[in-house]
Amino acid sequence: MNAVGVDVGGTKIAVGLVTPEGKILGEVRYPTPSSQQKLVDTIARAVSEVEDGSEVGGACLAVPGLILAQENKVVFSPNLRCVEGIPLKDELEPKIGMPLTIENDGNAAAWGEFRFGVGSEADHLVFITLGTGIGGGIITHGILMRGAQGSGGELGHVTIQATGPRCACGNHGCLEALASGTAIGRRARELAIEHPDSALGRLAASRKVLGEDVTELAREGNEVALSVLKEAGTWLGVGLAGFINVFNPEVVAVGGGVMEAGELLLEPARREVMLRARPPSSELAEVKAATLGAKSGVLGAAALARDASSGEYVLGG
Amino acid sequence: MNAVGVDVGGTKIAVGLVTPEGKILGEVRYPTPSSQQKLVDTIARAVSEVEDGSEVGGACLAVPGLILAQENKVVFSPNLRCVEGIPLKDELEPKIGMPLTIENDGNAAAWGEFRFGVGSEADHLVFITLGTGIGGGIITHGILMRGAQGSGGELGHVTIQATGPRCACGNHGCLEALASGTAIGRRARELAIEHPDSALGRLAASRKVLGEDVTELAREGNEVALSVLKEAGTWLGVGLAGFINVFNPEVVAVGGGVMEAGELLLEPARREVMLRARPPSSELAEVKAATLGAKSGVLGAAALARDASSGEYVLGG
Repeated sequence: MNAVGVDVGGTKIAVGLVTPEGKILGEVRYPTPSSQQKLVDTIARAVSEVEDGSEVGGACLAVPGLILAQENKVVFSPNLRCVEGIPLKDELEPKIGMPLTIENDGNAAAWGEFRFGVGSEADHLVFITLGTGIGGGIITHGILMRGAQGSGGELGHVTIQATGPRCACGNHGCLEALASGTAIGRRARELAIEHPDSALGRLAASRKVLGEDVTELAREGNEVALSVLKEAGTWLGVGLAGFINVFNPEVVAVGGGVMEAGELLLEPARREVMLRARPPSSELAEVKAATLGAKSGVLGAAALARDASSGEYVLGG
Repeated sequence: MNAVGVDVGGTKIAVGLVTPEGKILGEVRYPTPSSQQKLVDTIARAVSEVEDGSEVGGACLAVPGLILAQENKVVFSPNLRCVEGIPLKDELEPKIGMPLTIENDGNAAAWGEFRFGVGSEADHLVFITLGTGIGGGIITHGILMRGAQGSGGELGHVTIQATGPRCACGNHGCLEALASGTAIGRRARELAIEHPDSALGRLAASRKVLGEDVTELAREGNEVALSVLKEAGTWLGVGLAGFINVFNPEVVAVGGGVMEAGELLLEPARREVMLRARPPSSELAEVKAATLGAKSGVLGAAALARDASSGEYVLGG
């Protein structure tokens, strides 16, 4: 049966009606409202628009932040403060008239890539998403590893350099503090000061350099920008090597906006993985770009809704 | 039905006949022989001694090193070189007359603690063992997380300080390089030079200081030894915080010989976990001493053998 996937982001909400095979039959997008009531109403309206009278098995909401699965509640969502603490399931289910579950967006996207994307041939997938922050999700032995409360899979907040730079979470040396878009922008601004005559230095003199500027300059051949991506890719590799030793996955998929940089990040990451991961795990694991792009959240959420309602996969703690 | 657990260590082999409830009905120990043929013969003899004509469902061999589960083979075992590459299952099964599986010792011990020890009330357990090296095993959603090849759960070889000291595996800054017995001994020898008049310094002048000396001196109140354990415990906490964010477990159990130091290690580890792990995972996870001690390997291996033969748990990739 078809299912609805809802991907709630910091700036927009994407809602799709998805077949069991992963085909999106209809999709709508709305800007993310900033009040709780409008958020709930917008989601409810978007769901009724995409389902359009067809038979639908259920819906799943992918939300950025830490989820308390037993309560179907978002505990902490720094980029979407208005969802924190609302009983989303209780508020939305009567309005949309179908069973609803709540999932962390990284976990939902990982499930999307596992079902329909780069991990569809694998039983063991590490999915990591590089954006402003770093999120991810783990599939192990064909199961979405949610952990006891549904807040597992926080791959960005693993320490890889305890004395490293401060992370948005308050700690030092998290993977997110060294390989996210934010980290790339910060490092580029540091190097721009050291290289004022480079293209990066000149850009930094005119405005604040962001992660995406680094990719653009690197594509144009700027050496300083290339070195920033190489450094971030190497840190990414340090983190991925640990995940490979711990999870022994077939596939490590890297997605998110920062992956616009593609091989400029993945190539140094793979090199570091070969240094730090151990055989046989290091020989098996393929480090690849994710393939579903921004659709992974909607596709994964819909698949989770369907798998939950069919009993194929039991959500919850 | 009863099952046999075989714990193959670098210096001794322990073989036990274990009930489904985790009671050891009989146990024998032999020194670990250094040749392949003698190793196989010793294990076969030990198994026949403990089974003693009773009905036994199967046996499982817990072996230190990296396992290739599909082939029931040990790929890499630095402390037990003679088991590398032997078709242990094919050699042993005809001799012992029962189904045999091969498991990494950290995974087997984790399963023991999960079934009969500190994790018996949990569905999600991170088990870490601190000895000369660091090993471990993960139970997530009630499943032993072996990974695609059975070589998952290598918790000692996760980088927590990329620029840190060199590890036995060749990399820098692995958890093992900062919190194992070997790391504690090395750090104590460094500090002994800085503090020649301390009890630690005086011991170091007479012979090579080892990890266990540090625990003994710390128990006697030696400040330098206490600071070494505090530092190692803090590094342990850095690693555990990452595991808590990734796995969202109910229990984190710490075992192995180094745990003679007990709270002298666990207390600073818990403090660091509270700094680095995120709620709600940090609020749920209890960091505790493992309870089965040296029996965890035999108990876990036997439980895995039984669970495999009853179809309760399917071993393999």
